[in-house]
Amino acid sequence: MSRASDGQTLIQRLACLVHGFDTQHLPAEAIEVSRTAIIDTLGVALAGSVEPCARLLLRTPGVADSPGPCTLLGTSRKSSALDATLFNGTASHALDYDDFSQPFGGHHSVPLVAPLFAVAEAHGLSGAQLIASYVVGVEAEIHLARAVNFYHYDKGWHPTSTLGIFGATAACGHMLQLDETKLATALAIAASLASGVKANFGTMVKPLHVGQCTRNGLLAVLLAQSGYDANPEALEHKQGFLNAYNGPGHYDVRLLFENWADPLEVTRPTQGLKQFPCCGSTHPAVEMMLRLRREESITAADVEHVEILAHVRRLPHTDNPDPRTALASKFSIQYAVARALVDGTLRLKDFEGEAFLDDDVRAIMRKTKTRPHPDMAEDSGEQFGAEVRVTMRDGRVLVRKIDSLIGRGGDNPLSPSELWEKFHDCAARALPETVVLPLFERLQALETVADIGQLTRMMQTCEAPRVAMAS
Amino acid sequence: MSRASDGQTLIQRLACLVHGFDTQHLPAEAIEVSRTAIIDTLGVALAGSVEPCARLLLRTPGVADSPGPCTLLGTSRKSSALDATLFNGTASHALDYDDFSQPFGGHHSVPLVAPLFAVAEAHGLSGAQLIASYVVGVEAEIHLARAVNFYHYDKGWHPTSTLGIFGATAACGHMLQLDETKLATALAIAASLASGVKANFGTMVKPLHVGQCTRNGLLAVLLAQSGYDANPEALEHKQGFLNAYNGPGHYDVRLLFENWADPLEVTRPTQGLKQFPCCGSTHPAVEMMLRLRREESITAADVEHVEILAHVRRLPHTDNPDPRTALASKFSIQYAVARALVDGTLRLKDFEGEAFLDDDVRAIMRKTKTRPHPDMAEDSGEQFGAEVRVTMRDGRVLVRKIDSLIGRGGDNPLSPSELWEKFHDCAARALPETVVLPLFERLQALETVADIGQLTRMMQTCEAPRVAMAS
Repeated sequence: MSRASDGQTLIQRLACLVHGFDTQHLPAEAIEVSRTAIIDTLGVALAGSVEPCARLLLRTPGVADSPGPCTLLGTSRKSSALDATLFNGTASHALDYDDFSQPFGGHHSVPLVAPLFAVAEAHGLSGAQLIASYVVGVEAEIHLARAVNFYHYDKGWHPTSTLGIFGATAACGHMLQLDETKLATALAIAASLASGVKANFGTMVKPLHVGQCTRNGLLAVLLAQSGYDANPEALEHKQGFLNAYNGPGHYDVRLLFENWADPLEVTRPTQGLKQFPCCGSTHPAVEMMLRLRREESITAADVEHVEILAHVRRLPHTDNPDPRTALASKFSIQYAVARALVDGTLRLKDFEGEAFLDDDVRAIMRKTKTRPHPDMAEDSGEQFGAEVRVTMRDGRVLVRKIDSLIGRGGDNPLSPSELWEKFHDCAARALPETVVLPLFERLQALETVADIGQLTRMMQTCEAPRVAMAS
Repeated sequence: MSRASDGQTLIQRLACLVHGFDTQHLPAEAIEVSRTAIIDTLGVALAGSVEPCARLLLRTPGVADSPGPCTLLGTSRKSSALDATLFNGTASHALDYDDFSQPFGGHHSVPLVAPLFAVAEAHGLSGAQLIASYVVGVEAEIHLARAVNFYHYDKGWHPTSTLGIFGATAACGHMLQLDETKLATALAIAASLASGVKANFGTMVKPLHVGQCTRNGLLAVLLAQSGYDANPEALEHKQGFLNAYNGPGHYDVRLLFENWADPLEVTRPTQGLKQFPCCGSTHPAVEMMLRLRREESITAADVEHVEILAHVRRLPHTDNPDPRTALASKFSIQYAVARALVDGTLRLKDFEGEAFLDDDVRAIMRKTKTRPHPDMAEDSGEQFGAEVRVTMRDGRVLVRKIDSLIGRGGDNPLSPSELWEKFHDCAARALPETVVLPLFERLQALETVADIGQLTRMMQTCEAPRVAMAS
C-alpha cells in the first residue's frame, strides 16, 4: 500500500483534486474544445440511438423503463437518470464514431456525456456546469490512464469502460457537488464496478461497455450520496483496483497526479475527433484526397488513375480493393478514398446497404493502386501519415501528403462547417430534419444554456424510429 | 486461444452442458441439499432486507423503481426482475450469513437465489424448476472456480461476484430455456460485466457486489434473449476473461469440464452453511460448547472456568477477551462461546446493540482462557478444529473436541430444528411473526410449489420495515 505523501489514500487525494477543481476560470480554449467534443458526442449518440445495440435495450424488460425526467436521446421516452444513462451511453458508442484520446487508450468523451446530461436534466443544471464537470471528468480519467496504461490496455481491458467509469464518477460527483468524503466513497465504489474485456470488440457488447460504465459510475455517486460506505484505499489496496486489474509493478501512481490540470487534459493535442465514419487508419489518405479535390477543383471523371501511399502500419487491415460487405467497406482504404473523390464527402450512408457497390466509386477503385509509403519509416513516431497521387487525363500529376493525422483536434480542429456536416449526418438519423440545425446552433452556445432541459427537449422524438430493426 | 477438442469454444461447450443438463432425474439428495440452501439463503435475505446496504438502495433514485411483478423481499414493493434482483441479491449477502463453498472461494448460493426467484416469479414457474436451475448454476460457477482458483481469489477478486455472475447467467438462461447459441451469447456478455474487488470487504460494497453480479448475470440473459450478440471466445480469447482476470498461465481450462455433474457439485461435502451469525473461525468452539451444554445438561451458574483450545489459524482474528463494539463481538471467540454457554443458542440479536456487555456472559468471559490447540498442527489439512474444556464447580472437567467443522453440511447437516431456528431468527426481522412458520413449512416442500408467486407473496410486507435506518 503506497499512501500519498500527505497521509491521504490515492482516492482521497483524487477526490480532493476533483472537489477543489477551479472551474470558474476555465480558459476559453478549454470551453471551446469541450463544447466541440460534447456536440460531437451528442451527434454520434443520436445516430447510435437507432442502432440495434441501443434499440434492443428498449425491448429488454426492466431496462430503461423506470419513471424519471431524463430523455432517452432520439426516442420519445424518458426514464430515471440511471436508465437514461445506460441507453444514451450505449448509443453514443454504437457506431465507434466518437472521439478518442491516445493516452487514455480509448474514447474519453462517451463515459462522461451521457451521465452528465442525465444528471443535468434531472436537476435543471446549466450548460456551463455541464462543461465544467466534463473538463473535470476528462482530467480524472486520463490521469488514471497515465498511471496504468498501456499495460492495462494490452492486458485486455477496455479502458473506455474500465477507466471511463472513474471519469463518469468524478464528473457526476462534481456536478452533484458531493463533498470530498462522499466523492472518495463514490470513487471507491466505482473500483468494484469496473468491467469490460476487449474479447467482445466487434460485437454489440463493446457499446454496452459504455452504457454499463456510465450507469455504474453514476450509480456509485448516487449510492455515496444515499449513505453507502466503501474503502478509500480501493485503488492501492493489495486487493484493490490497481493490483487486481493491472498487477503489482504494472502501474505508476505518481502519474495519477503529475501535471494535474497543468495544462488541462482537454486542451492537449493527444485527442482526436473522428471526421469520417470508417476505420481511423484510412483517415489520413481520405483527408488528402478531399483536400486535393477541393483545392484543385477536380472531378472523378477527369481522373486517369490514383495511387495511395500510406504508412505501412495503416495498410494490413485496410488494403482491400474489393470489399464485399458494408462493414468491410469501412476497412477498405480504396473504397474510402474513391468515395471521397467521387462525392467530396464521406457520410454514414456510404457505409451502409450496398453503397460499396456504387458504379462510379467502383470505377475509381479499379484505377487505384496502394502501397506503403517509402519515406515513412515503420518505427517512426508518426504512424498516421499518407500521400495521394492523382494522375489526371490531361497528364498532370496532383499530390497531397500529410505526415500525421490522428483524427481532428489540437491545432487541426474541425472547421465549424465540417463539424456541422458530421453532426447533421448523424443527428438526422434520429431527429426530424427541421430540428437538426436549430439544435446545432443552440449547442454551439452550450455555455450560455441556462437549463439542459432546453436542449434535451430538442433531442426527443414523437415518432417511431426512422431506421427499422434488423430482427 | 485453446479451443475445446471438438472445435467449440469454452463458452459454447459450457452452454451445451448447461442446456443439456438432465434435471429430470435429480437424485433426492441433490433436491434435499438444494432446498436447504435455498431456504437458508431466503432467510438471510429477509434478515438482510432491513439492513442499511439494502434499505439505502430503496432511497436511491432509479434503483428498484421500474414497474414489474417481482417482490423485493421483506418490503411492500414490487419491481422488474432486474431491479428486484439487485435489491434481493444485495440483501442476501448483507449479513455475510449465507452459505459458502470451499473450491468457489466464496458464497455460491447468493449469486443464484435472487435472480432465480425474480425470473420464476415473473414467469409463474414452479419450485421444482427453481431447484433444477439452482443445481445447474452451482455446477457452472463452481466448475469455473476450479479452473481459476485460488489464484483468482488471491489476486483480489471477489469470486462470489466475479465468478457468481456466470452462475447467475447459467441458472437464469437455463430457467428461461435459452437455446445453446443464446446461452453462449449470454455467458459471453457476462464476461464483460464481471467485477468486485476484495479491497471493499468490510463495507456495504461487499453485499452490493452480489446485487450487481446477480443483476448483471440476469441482464446478460435478457440481452441475449433480446437479440444481442457477443464473442463466444470471451473466456479463452487472448483479451478475454481468463487472461484479463487471471493472466496467462494462471488457470487450467481442463478443470472447467472435469467431473461435470459427476457427482453433482451441490452434493459435495465442500460446502458449508453458517449456523451462527458470527465469524466462521469461532464456529467449531461454539458448536462444541453447545454440544457439551446439551449433552451434559449444565448451566452457566455451575461453571468454574472455561478453556478454549482452537487451531492456531483460528485465533489471530478471534482471540478478543473484551470486545468493545457489536461488530467486534462477532470476532470474539470468548464472547461467542460464553454466549453459547449462557443461552444455549446464538442469534442475530446477540451481536447487536450492547448485547456484548451482558453481565452473565461477561462473568463467563472473565473465567475463560484461550490458547492454540497443541495437537492441531498449523500445516494440517484440517484447519477448523477446536476443543472446549469446562471445569465445573463440583470439580468435574467436561470436554468436547472436533477436528474439523467448516460450517454445516455434507454428512453433518443442520437438523430441521436447527434450520428452523436460524430461519425464524432471520425471517422475523422483516416479516410478521405469524407468517414465518407457514412460510418455512411451505418452503420445506419447495419442490411441490406450483408457482413461486405463492411463496413470494408470503415474503412481502404491508408495513414499514421493523428496523429503523441509522441515518
